Amino acid sequence: MPILEIFSQGEEIVTGQTLDTNAAWLSEQAVQLGFTVARHTAVGDKLGDLVELLKEIAERADCCLCTGGLGPTSDDLTAEAVAEAFGLPLEFDEIAYRQIQSYFSNRKRPMPETNRKQALLPQGSIRLDNDWGTAPGFAVPAGRCWFAFMPGVPSEMRHIFLERVKPLLNERFILNPSRLVTIKTLGIGESDIQQRLGEVKMPERVQLGFRAGVDEVQTKLLFPADYPEKDMTALTADMTARLGDFVFGIDGLNEETGNLAAAVDKLMRAAGKTLAVIETASQGLLAAKCLGYAWLHSAAYEQSLSALGERLGVAVEMSDLAKTGELLAKALQNQNPADFVLIQLYDGSPAQFQNKDQTIILYNTLLNRESFQQNRHNLGGPAGRKQNQAALLGLDLLRRHLQNRKI
Amino acid sequence: MPILEIFSQGEEIVTGQTLDTNAAWLSEQAVQLGFTVARHTAVGDKLGDLVELLKEIAERADCCLCTGGLGPTSDDLTAEAVAEAFGLPLEFDEIAYRQIQSYFSNRKRPMPETNRKQALLPQGSIRLDNDWGTAPGFAVPAGRCWFAFMPGVPSEMRHIFLERVKPLLNERFILNPSRLVTIKTLGIGESDIQQRLGEVKMPERVQLGFRAGVDEVQTKLLFPADYPEKDMTALTADMTARLGDFVFGIDGLNEETGNLAAAVDKLMRAAGKTLAVIETASQGLLAAKCLGYAWLHSAAYEQSLSALGERLGVAVEMSDLAKTGELLAKALQNQNPADFVLIQLYDGSPAQFQNKDQTIILYNTLLNRESFQQNRHNLGGPAGRKQNQAALLGLDLLRRHLQNRKI
Repeated sequence: MPILEIFSQGEEIVTGQTLDTNAAWLSEQAVQLGFTVARHTAVGDKLGDLVELLKEIAERADCCLCTGGLGPTSDDLTAEAVAEAFGLPLEFDEIAYRQIQSYFSNRKRPMPETNRKQALLPQGSIRLDNDWGTAPGFAVPAGRCWFAFMPGVPSEMRHIFLERVKPLLNERFILNPSRLVTIKTLGIGESDIQQRLGEVKMPERVQLGFRAGVDEVQTKLLFPADYPEKDMTALTADMTARLGDFVFGIDGLNEETGNLAAAVDKLMRAAGKTLAVIETASQGLLAAKCLGYAWLHSAAYEQSLSALGERLGVAVEMSDLAKTGELLAKALQNQNPADFVLIQLYDGSPAQFQNKDQTIILYNTLLNRESFQQNRHNLGGPAGRKQNQAALLGLDLLRRHLQNRKI
Repeated sequence: MPILEIFSQGEEIVTGQTLDTNAAWLSEQAVQLGFTVARHTAVGDKLGDLVELLKEIAERADCCLCTGGLGPTSDDLTAEAVAEAFGLPLEFDEIAYRQIQSYFSNRKRPMPETNRKQALLPQGSIRLDNDWGTAPGFAVPAGRCWFAFMPGVPSEMRHIFLERVKPLLNERFILNPSRLVTIKTLGIGESDIQQRLGEVKMPERVQLGFRAGVDEVQTKLLFPADYPEKDMTALTADMTARLGDFVFGIDGLNEETGNLAAAVDKLMRAAGKTLAVIETASQGLLAAKCLGYAWLHSAAYEQSLSALGERLGVAVEMSDLAKTGELLAKALQNQNPADFVLIQLYDGSPAQFQNKDQTIILYNTLLNRESFQQNRHNLGGPAGRKQNQAALLGLDLLRRHLQNRKI
């Protein structure tokens, strides 16, 4: 697979004032097209740094997608750097100049003299017309590498990439887009997953990766373009089976699952059921994750467990939260027309909750007209992590119930 | 000024699946400390690429802050790459091993054998203890450069940087830190701020910048190290006065405000008051933002406004949400011992809420024993933005009430 690099120019990126969303977006596009993305680099507006970097990339990569530094001001140095790095003097491009002029005349504004600079392109380059802003991009081969230079404004860059650069990439490179399958789990760590999958014989051509996020742990399988569909399905099924109940979704095979809440949404809509929830440790976050889902009827948070008990007419026993959860669930069910009732309680002081080195014990109770389920978990880490885990584990109990019932 | 580079390792970054927020965050920190940040580089998990890059940086920079690749799995190669690049064989670190063990035993989970790998550190490196996760970081000099390797999980990385790496940087480098003052506002846009500040005479040595985030808009003033304290205070006060009531906090002068919820927390604790809230548009997110604050007594979300009215014995009038808000607030106050009652209602269909091109109208009602306040806002953008804005604007009404009363 051809090797591609991403290069961003801009002082605001190197100093951390702007997040480089262009690099991530272009990388995703490149991977989908069938490139191997090897590096991202960002430098500021020092001409020497730019020249040096362009020379390095010309020896290292087959293709480079570049953003930024095409504006009219003195710190926009990309064309100059290309000229110096590869000995390609800047030439005045008449058509580019006329496009810049009409950009201004269409907006009934005079063209500042500084914008003339944007019509200067390195010798031998292809102009990439910019119908969405003033700066045209350009593409030029140098060394083993084909460079495409685009403006840094994300909306302009995306247009130019999709309508100008992508067709050229498909012409110039022999590309075999690979396929990525992602198995998404909750409640199991990265190393436990690795142990469970340890015995699977991984075909050499398939790349296995893991990614632990705050909301899920992902197991990723990257298949080459010519990998047989049925082998891909079989390997995914084998790995999914080994991870069992922890799997809440698979992306990249038939459809995208989205996050856990979206997976629950799909199951709840299929079942035609509704939910009422009482949150404690997650303090509103479980409800917040269900934004836009009509099956969530109501949610409540009460800081004091005894106030909650009083409101629902239940005698709270701190020493038996499993039983208290059951009683609260039944009391809420009597008041509330929702099909499912979910009660979240926890054992732990405010100090334990806040202390990242201490754990709390979470009790989830799920009740519907026919059945009753409970589970408990130890939650550790900073308060925000405990909160998020509590929200996810509540949704996950519902997900497991709905999923298993269906099977 | 010493030259610093940022280096991120991770296939998920190079392939564009994760936005590299670590690089931006570390750059800001480094600039404030007094470094010149020259480059960001990200590479995937190919050992050869990593080794090559580390060697390049060792010749080019005085300092390099590195993230990622310290996990327990086979694609976590950073320590191995350092060993190979600089001829520093990996050594088993007994203390690191015991820390990893206790991370698991604290969570009552068995330690998978694969995690043992995380205790292997390159010869001659300093261990950077990680109290927030399993992987310790490490720092090691090579060539002209001092490298610090930190985990890629943002929360762990930030802790390790602030508590372990930053003190070492101050020891090893002669730094003239510039000072950054951040004026934090809610409810006013970047261009409105610019207009209000347009008449302020900016001293040439002070750099003015703006950053619009999802939770606040920041006006940033970067002062050189030797800028007189009293001039800095005077300029900040002038600008703050021009922004008026929109300002909820100032960071970098005396103390850090934190986010809006933290600012409200401070005011509520000073006033010794408590709050009960009913959420609609923010659907739990307002309560979720108040995690750990004892003054939030209760929160409720009810999808159906008529169900809410029934529960509180109030006749709901969809055509007059201001009045309905007032009646609901009074009814809740009669049931609830909290000092403040906050009712959030909105006008808009589910379709309008979901459509990023349509707006909803938010009504906030704040009631305590003595006074009564209401405001309304138009909320636009994607559903998640509407939700977040609704949560923030509710808290902000409380903030303004408490802040003005005090003055």
